Amino acid sequence: MTNEQLLIQGGLQAWKFNEDPIDKFFRALSEEQLQHEIMPGRNRLIYLWGHIAAVNDALFPLLGLGPKMYPELDPMFLANPDRAVQEIYSGHEVGRAFGEINRALWTAFTRWTTAEWLEKHTSVSDEDFVREPHRNRFTVVVSRNTHMAFHFGQAMLTKPGP
Amino acid sequence: MTNEQLLIQGGLQAWKFNEDPIDKFFRALSEEQLQHEIMPGRNRLIYLWGHIAAVNDALFPLLGLGPKMYPELDPMFLANPDRAVQEIYSGHEVGRAFGEINRALWTAFTRWTTAEWLEKHTSVSDEDFVREPHRNRFTVVVSRNTHMAFHFGQAMLTKPGP
Repeated sequence: MTNEQLLIQGGLQAWKFNEDPIDKFFRALSEEQLQHEIMPGRNRLIYLWGHIAAVNDALFPLLGLGPKMYPELDPMFLANPDRAVQEIYSGHEVGRAFGEINRALWTAFTRWTTAEWLEKHTSVSDEDFVREPHRNRFTVVVSRNTHMAFHFGQAMLTKPGP
Repeated sequence: MTNEQLLIQGGLQAWKFNEDPIDKFFRALSEEQLQHEIMPGRNRLIYLWGHIAAVNDALFPLLGLGPKMYPELDPMFLANPDRAVQEIYSGHEVGRAFGEINRALWTAFTRWTTAEWLEKHTSVSDEDFVREPHRNRFTVVVSRNTHMAFHFGQAMLTKPGP
């Protein structure tokens, strides 16, 4: 394996180390448990799960992979706060979307060459990218990984413990 | 910049994008505010801040950079749950430790060559590293970044909002 491949693999390992426990945590919850708020008056677990799915779904256009797979997640879990939209996905539906989005992302992540990883993301202009070549797909994915962790930390507060 | 350098820079950008708001958030809190629990009966903000500092401090031995800078953080904020240890650092003291630990880490991060980034971390054996070369410093740092985000997500629940 080349150094470039090892560095990319490091980013991918960190993604998997994070995504796998998140997937496992939410899938173990019943529809009723997913209705629990993380604390009184704050987001429900179903909202956090849908929110992570919606933000990951937005990676498709941002990384130049095509349109979102589940654009309906956006009004339910991203553009609006929890409970602002009456009809939202069930846990079963969020789980399916979360799984399909992350599988499709993973397929792209594991196929890209180094040059493809270092392509610019779609919200940076060609001129800016010349000056700021770090605004590439790899930086986006490694950063987006922290977004998942941020909300997973909140969701985990619903488990007993300190 | 070489592809290797660009990939490393991606990991470092993601670290900074995460660490800077964390630093800013906690430093803006008074000693009194740092005593607030993130929710009733759970960790106080001071504990989360100290915990992030203690876990980052553990990177020095893990990455082969030398001993911890503030080993006293471990019993206060890592080995024991919040409130189990009577005498813990004040916010002022945690802030100083957090700043010095992260500055020293950053100095190492920005000086390492690609080969140094891809060295094994100290808790993997030589034999295992031959089979699992992704167990290197870069993977550790990119993963540790999600640890910071996990607890920052919890701390941010003390701000008003959904």
